[in-house]
Amino acid sequence: MVRDVFDAPAVAGLKGWMGVGHVRYPTAGSSAHAEAQPFYVNSPYGIVFAHNGNIVNTPSLRQYLDVDAHRHINTDSDSELLLNILANNLQKTGKFRINEEDIFTAVGDLTRTCIGAYACVAMIAGFGLIVFRDPNGIRPAGIATRKGARGGLDYLVASESVVAQGLGFTEWEDVKAGEAIIITRNNISRRQVAQPQAFAPDIFEHVYFARPDSTIDGISVYRSRMKMGDLLAETVKKELVKANIEIDVVIPVPDTSRTAALNCAQALNIPYREGFVKNRYVGRTFIMPGQTQRRKNVRRKLNAMPEEFAGKTVMLVDDSIVRGTTSKEIVQMAKDVGAKRVIFASCAPPIRYSNVYGIDMPSPHELIAHGRTTEEIAEHIGADLVIYQTLEDLVESCRQFNPVIKQFDCSVFTGEYVTGGVDERYLEHIQRLRNDNAKAKKKQQTFEAVEATEGGCSGPMNGADSLISMHRSDSLMGLANHSPKLGATGMPSPNDTIGLHNSWYGQ
Amino acid sequence: MVRDVFDAPAVAGLKGWMGVGHVRYPTAGSSAHAEAQPFYVNSPYGIVFAHNGNIVNTPSLRQYLDVDAHRHINTDSDSELLLNILANNLQKTGKFRINEEDIFTAVGDLTRTCIGAYACVAMIAGFGLIVFRDPNGIRPAGIATRKGARGGLDYLVASESVVAQGLGFTEWEDVKAGEAIIITRNNISRRQVAQPQAFAPDIFEHVYFARPDSTIDGISVYRSRMKMGDLLAETVKKELVKANIEIDVVIPVPDTSRTAALNCAQALNIPYREGFVKNRYVGRTFIMPGQTQRRKNVRRKLNAMPEEFAGKTVMLVDDSIVRGTTSKEIVQMAKDVGAKRVIFASCAPPIRYSNVYGIDMPSPHELIAHGRTTEEIAEHIGADLVIYQTLEDLVESCRQFNPVIKQFDCSVFTGEYVTGGVDERYLEHIQRLRNDNAKAKKKQQTFEAVEATEGGCSGPMNGADSLISMHRSDSLMGLANHSPKLGATGMPSPNDTIGLHNSWYGQ
Amino acid sequence: MVRDVFDAPAVAGLKGWMGVGHVRYPTAGSSAHAEAQPFYVNSPYGIVFAHNGNIVNTPSLRQYLDVDAHRHINTDSDSELLLNILANNLQKTGKFRINEEDIFTAVGDLTRTCIGAYACVAMIAGFGLIVFRDPNGIRPAGIATRKGARGGLDYLVASESVVAQGLGFTEWEDVKAGEAIIITRNNISRRQVAQPQAFAPDIFEHVYFARPDSTIDGISVYRSRMKMGDLLAETVKKELVKANIEIDVVIPVPDTSRTAALNCAQALNIPYREGFVKNRYVGRTFIMPGQTQRRKNVRRKLNAMPEEFAGKTVMLVDDSIVRGTTSKEIVQMAKDVGAKRVIFASCAPPIRYSNVYGIDMPSPHELIAHGRTTEEIAEHIGADLVIYQTLEDLVESCRQFNPVIKQFDCSVFTGEYVTGGVDERYLEHIQRLRNDNAKAKKKQQTFEAVEATEGGCSGPMNGADSLISMHRSDSLMGLANHSPKLGATGMPSPNDTIGLHNSWYGQ
Amino acid sequence: MVRDVFDAPAVAGLKGWMGVGHVRYPTAGSSAHAEAQPFYVNSPYGIVFAHNGNIVNTPSLRQYLDVDAHRHINTDSDSELLLNILANNLQKTGKFRINEEDIFTAVGDLTRTCIGAYACVAMIAGFGLIVFRDPNGIRPAGIATRKGARGGLDYLVASESVVAQGLGFTEWEDVKAGEAIIITRNNISRRQVAQPQAFAPDIFEHVYFARPDSTIDGISVYRSRMKMGDLLAETVKKELVKANIEIDVVIPVPDTSRTAALNCAQALNIPYREGFVKNRYVGRTFIMPGQTQRRKNVRRKLNAMPEEFAGKTVMLVDDSIVRGTTSKEIVQMAKDVGAKRVIFASCAPPIRYSNVYGIDMPSPHELIAHGRTTEEIAEHIGADLVIYQTLEDLVESCRQFNPVIKQFDCSVFTGEYVTGGVDERYLEHIQRLRNDNAKAKKKQQTFEAVEATEGGCSGPMNGADSLISMHRSDSLMGLANHSPKLGATGMPSPNDTIGLHNSWYGQ
Repeated sequence: MVRDVFDAPAVAGLKGWMGVGHVRYPTAGSSAHAEAQPFYVNSPYGIVFAHNGNIVNTPSLRQYLDVDAHRHINTDSDSELLLNILANNLQKTGKFRINEEDIFTAVGDLTRTCIGAYACVAMIAGFGLIVFRDPNGIRPAGIATRKGARGGLDYLVASESVVAQGLGFTEWEDVKAGEAIIITRNNISRRQVAQPQAFAPDIFEHVYFARPDSTIDGISVYRSRMKMGDLLAETVKKELVKANIEIDVVIPVPDTSRTAALNCAQALNIPYREGFVKNRYVGRTFIMPGQTQRRKNVRRKLNAMPEEFAGKTVMLVDDSIVRGTTSKEIVQMAKDVGAKRVIFASCAPPIRYSNVYGIDMPSPHELIAHGRTTEEIAEHIGADLVIYQTLEDLVESCRQFNPVIKQFDCSVFTGEYVTGGVDERYLEHIQRLRNDNAKAKKKQQTFEAVEATEGGCSGPMNGADSLISMHRSDSLMGLANHSPKLGATGMPSPNDTIGLHNSWYGQ
Repeated sequence: MVRDVFDAPAVAGLKGWMGVGHVRYPTAGSSAHAEAQPFYVNSPYGIVFAHNGNIVNTPSLRQYLDVDAHRHINTDSDSELLLNILANNLQKTGKFRINEEDIFTAVGDLTRTCIGAYACVAMIAGFGLIVFRDPNGIRPAGIATRKGARGGLDYLVASESVVAQGLGFTEWEDVKAGEAIIITRNNISRRQVAQPQAFAPDIFEHVYFARPDSTIDGISVYRSRMKMGDLLAETVKKELVKANIEIDVVIPVPDTSRTAALNCAQALNIPYREGFVKNRYVGRTFIMPGQTQRRKNVRRKLNAMPEEFAGKTVMLVDDSIVRGTTSKEIVQMAKDVGAKRVIFASCAPPIRYSNVYGIDMPSPHELIAHGRTTEEIAEHIGADLVIYQTLEDLVESCRQFNPVIKQFDCSVFTGEYVTGGVDERYLEHIQRLRNDNAKAKKKQQTFEAVEATEGGCSGPMNGADSLISMHRSDSLMGLANHSPKLGATGMPSPNDTIGLHNSWYGQ
Repeated sequence: MVRDVFDAPAVAGLKGWMGVGHVRYPTAGSSAHAEAQPFYVNSPYGIVFAHNGNIVNTPSLRQYLDVDAHRHINTDSDSELLLNILANNLQKTGKFRINEEDIFTAVGDLTRTCIGAYACVAMIAGFGLIVFRDPNGIRPAGIATRKGARGGLDYLVASESVVAQGLGFTEWEDVKAGEAIIITRNNISRRQVAQPQAFAPDIFEHVYFARPDSTIDGISVYRSRMKMGDLLAETVKKELVKANIEIDVVIPVPDTSRTAALNCAQALNIPYREGFVKNRYVGRTFIMPGQTQRRKNVRRKLNAMPEEFAGKTVMLVDDSIVRGTTSKEIVQMAKDVGAKRVIFASCAPPIRYSNVYGIDMPSPHELIAHGRTTEEIAEHIGADLVIYQTLEDLVESCRQFNPVIKQFDCSVFTGEYVTGGVDERYLEHIQRLRNDNAKAKKKQQTFEAVEATEGGCSGPMNGADSLISMHRSDSLMGLANHSPKLGATGMPSPNDTIGLHNSWYGQ
Repeated sequence: MVRDVFDAPAVAGLKGWMGVGHVRYPTAGSSAHAEAQPFYVNSPYGIVFAHNGNIVNTPSLRQYLDVDAHRHINTDSDSELLLNILANNLQKTGKFRINEEDIFTAVGDLTRTCIGAYACVAMIAGFGLIVFRDPNGIRPAGIATRKGARGGLDYLVASESVVAQGLGFTEWEDVKAGEAIIITRNNISRRQVAQPQAFAPDIFEHVYFARPDSTIDGISVYRSRMKMGDLLAETVKKELVKANIEIDVVIPVPDTSRTAALNCAQALNIPYREGFVKNRYVGRTFIMPGQTQRRKNVRRKLNAMPEEFAGKTVMLVDDSIVRGTTSKEIVQMAKDVGAKRVIFASCAPPIRYSNVYGIDMPSPHELIAHGRTTEEIAEHIGADLVIYQTLEDLVESCRQFNPVIKQFDCSVFTGEYVTGGVDERYLEHIQRLRNDNAKAKKKQQTFEAVEATEGGCSGPMNGADSLISMHRSDSLMGLANHSPKLGATGMPSPNDTIGLHNSWYGQ
């Protein structure tokens, strides 16, 4: 947890008027401390960098940085590559002090060199904050403002709107696909720097990843999940008729699926019951030496209330089915307490392919839907029937709230990768990295930096009421304040800079 | 968390065939390490002791132990007093080896000396496990069995049935009020040792404290909460008619009240919606230096979904209203996202008095219902209407599932204490202890010991698949195995005994 | 280190006007936390207890406590047995409040029951401090006083005088063999409670164990070591003549032997040189995987200066030779830098037997002198000649400063144990305990409590300027203050008592 | 302690065939983690860097790096400046792969840009190790070799020869003033890169800083200290005649001064006695609340043996007198145990000026000799007479063992700084940094990396038997192996690189 790393004394020690942070669940590469974000290079200018997403043309970038840029890459992180591409683009200007034009050019060049998903925040010492998003807008990012505690405007960049809301920022606006934003002490500039490409945000944010109280690319996650429940009900009706089954009760698998399950139940006009009780105190478990683990983990986290299952035909609703191991356990639990029949409905279509854009998913051969029909899946998890949302309905659930979006990246369902450049060899490469990572069993890195105050103040930080816990494991965040009334103060003194591990905060 | 204290290496080091543990939220007295349970005295015999509940005649017990028993009491814990009363009763026998008769007599004498609520587990070195419950049965306790991994029967004693269920024990049976149970290596004996008194379990277990998937004194907590929702609907109907209000939607305050709220909504035939989203990652928060905390804590834990509130008359359902500060925040959140009117319904009647039987509650002057009418409470929390369950309906919700129970301890609602012996002076005393405790801001003690295997084994522990996390903060637990086929093995060797802090495990 | 356990916050939390502490290197039994001293029993009266030494009739004491006293013994510590013997003796009085007569009787009975070496400090809640020493006075103990910070007299009991000196206490006086001392708030009483036996302090304190700046039983350790050097010179002269060797230089093995070596050199009129340089920064070392440790540990701690060895006949002086492994390394180091011949002189005679009185020594078969002649020892360590102090001279070195002492316990040299009761079976028993302990590789326990102020004060502790680090690994310590002018204050309130682990401080 | 940071698991994780480490006591600037060495820049090539010494023209270097090199400097460390000057010099070549010529040129340019004391070790990823020493050779550095565990030669660079000796390296040779050495996998090249300047090593290494068993610039530290004792005796004789005093005994102040004191005593033909006993267990101390610290710290570390002082005229010998506070305490201790008269002799002349070349010393106004005559100093510390070594004798003590050395840096005695560039403004600057540092009371940084094996091996490290503890607080160290038989292997794979904090190890 970020709050365990950045405790009160750590936060109290932060200085300056801008900052960059990241909570990154390592999607590829190791999870060692050396890969904790933000990354830092001191030449040129001093750049701090955080990246959410995943790059797919890493081998060629790595070679370019070695042979042409003479930059040493210290880790397996694709984010370190991105930073060094940016640094090299800036270094080529050879200028004492760069200007906004130079930066827009450097980021534009980067978007033509780097293929994949990337929402990024960078900070240039003594200059300001840079934000940009990949040309397809696969990973989310937005920007918001509030009045600074000592004047001027505070800016916040984050993956989800809920972060802004939690810290009192308003006027949330999405960073556009292929757009770069520069926030200096005096100014904010936005420019479309990438060549036009298809806007295709990752639909899996809506299925599972994003918080329900967020709005992403103009779409309320909560509303899209309600709609998933409504549309799922249509498919369910047809399937039940086909299978000649009548269900007595709709029961959600806590917690993500509650929203859709409740709407689905109401659309079906069938009672909705909270049949599973969560045990909040169970976490990691220990196996006694010499024993096999008799009970599966999910049974320690959930308890089925017999009153809701006994003698009934129940429909369980979950957001998606990934490996199927949890689904199988849950179906068994329902039967153990007397369910007559168990229907398992998924708000998302079958997942059959890798995610290469920054969401950590099992490799295809671990996915239950990989190479199985719906009937085989039902048999495998012990359900009497499995009902999947159709891809059309899923897309419709999200799209209707923002018709500007023509398409989503649905590659985990279709195997079609919007950026191109994803071939068999790359898929094997990313799989190997993930396996190595799993083997190393290293702890996931948790890192974040946050929060800044108005320029020039030498006192304690202010401008926000607290350090927030990032709401998800891959969030990034940048904060800055510009106060035109303070005038251009030029290069701050070196004493304003503090370094922590390989990161760099404030200025 | 118990799991943070008893990690894998700690569990691996436990030896022997029985054990005692306790997770105790300090209800009175300090929370220092010295009060971690179980307590231990080495004379006579070596006794380990855990106690759930609270004793009300502590001053006279303390004096008796000093003047008559010459026993030094090291802490402010009432549990240490109970243990020493038991030890002194046993010591008076003057025997080399005690028998079951001696123990039943000693516990019987204890029930006549100690006034209050107590569910207890004790372990006598080389002898066995003792379980007993106060004459009114105020605090819960039950016993269950399973087949031992190496033969014989494993016994488990716990506060709630869910613990037994989680560890594969069956045949859960309540320990009776005033009953003592002795489990030795070869035998189990039960006897009614206290003089008959009114059986009056604490009704607050059902309102809030117990887990919904537990059964306490024959009553399913889940069912009692469903019934609370059903009966609350009756009162709500009347009150709404009286107030001439129609509500659009029923929204639970997560998490405890979901069960009752859903039943209430269905009984009222009004839509049920999950209007509040929990943020699982927010914990403790930091205030930046020089700032006031602008947002209340509850806002960091819950987010209101505007879709469910805007322009509607909403009825929020919570399990109870204690201080009222959270309720006030929640009402305000509902209004902030556009609720037209907010009705606040409580599954329990107004709480106006202290709990002296082991549930930690604020002092009366901190309770919002203390000295206020329902209208004043509504005004105070900003609700348009507050509706309380009646005490009759609350008792009815629980009682109908076990008509054997003639009464419950409802003292927090009525101020009538079933044991007697609770006067103004005692109430002041317990209040002072709690305040001192609060001031000390000491961390709550978390302690537990658990799990044993059949007698005589020298290898690692088995007989259970894992160390469980206790499900609540005041649970106690005892485990034993008796294997008649092993025969009486007499006093085990001293090497079978291990000590940890002031506790004593296994044998 | 004690200072790492009892840091400033821990010391600041101590309350009351007396305390007991102990730094004990486990001499037998395990080193687990459960054996940390002081031990505590709550019945009768509340007794805290610390013990330096070792008991040899533990099996019979253990049986007595089980069968007759019904007291559970939780650990393998002989000190816990001693405490329970004392507690049982006191309990037999059956009194509400004991008096000094009862205590002297109880300790006197203990001295007739417990065989071995014991210097003890006990504290009875609400009564005072008790000090006693075994009938042979094998282990040291003394008492000193100073003016209390708020009036009255502070008393301190410790193993060595240097502790008293360091804390500003004066009038150091040895506790007599077989004597008991009782210090209450108003009074100090001393009485000879054991039957007269031979006074025979352990001579090994002077050879190696005690600090040179201490005075033990009237003998300055520093002076006794100077005298060892003087007398060793006599033996050296004869042996050199016999061997027809002339030595060029005397070199001490740092640090303990410096005092004797310098005197020896001056008595021989041969140059004294500091030929070995200590490396203060080397501690534990790591072996790289797949490698053997090429250099011995002692070489990492000492460096030989070639200037002092090359081409010379050197005499190395050490306090004693135990296993011989260090001596062998040191001889080799001297030869490696060019020593022509190496004579090795020991200030103590050959060590051939176990120490059963509380000093941790290897088992006999690990002692180089066990079953070897001096010539064989010289050959084994690679020296050209080994010269041992005679036992007569060692005794004379110590005795001359206090002719009252007729004998010393010299059992490690002679195998004659002054207490009796040490047979082959016991020696095997203690060896097994030590081996188990070594195998467990548990950390040694470090524990101590200290420091108190005058009675009745409710403020912070005072009366001493600081918490001292105990000067050796088996020191015990007691402190008390009595202030007759304050009058008898009777039993203090329970709130004055604090407990920490299995210990009990203050009152 | 290094051994607490680099424990066995940390060492086991090191990979590759070369490494750089440093134990640096921060001489100027803060002691924060961010300044832990080695420093790292990834552009160009990846350079790791450790520096012993101190630079005096930091302001102009800092400005150059900002304005001309566009390199962000993250800390106040002068070492980070040195690294970036080197990096910038290399970057100016613009080459894909640099060669030895480029490096010699870059280091040569650095010696003309950077003024001060610097012994440095750098590592270029995929290339090799670089070593260089400032043109005056103020700080020591040497190089040694041993046979590699798997062939080839291991090279070690360190501040003192004792490190090489401890790890089995031989053929110790000093790095020359102004020399650069490049060690690659296949080759070692040495070249004089700086313009000729006066060779002037810091004489304070011999007085106090270096270990006695080291040889620095061809001079045995042990021998130079013996000689200091011999020559001090000459001055003592004259001063005693002048003062008409006869001394009875010479007593060293442990530990550094023993060597000189013993020689001095023998040259004077006066008895040498170890009158002070060290207490090894006393460390930090606690003041009880509300008390003043009655006893000074030095009294807790040393005890004076009355036998050696009572009624005597004693001469105490110490290596130097810095603040004088310890000397004053020691004189008082001698008088407290009965010394008739106390003469205090110092092996070094009066210290009156700042050290700006990397040895942490108090500011001039804290030095007792600053602005005081010898008589005033004697009065201030309470001695009957103070006798200082003359500067000529001190220089002679060191120089005679290596007549090649024409001069030493003696600036702390003379105020003449060999490099030039040290003016009043700089002295104020460095004083301010040290004060800030002292105020921050931050822990000193301890860092080190060490040990490598032959090229290309993928297994665990070998080639040395253990991780050594660095012998002093400002040591630096580099290791490498070249194995010509392995041939040029070119750029190693990225997986051979591991990063730890801001450092970079192995390759």
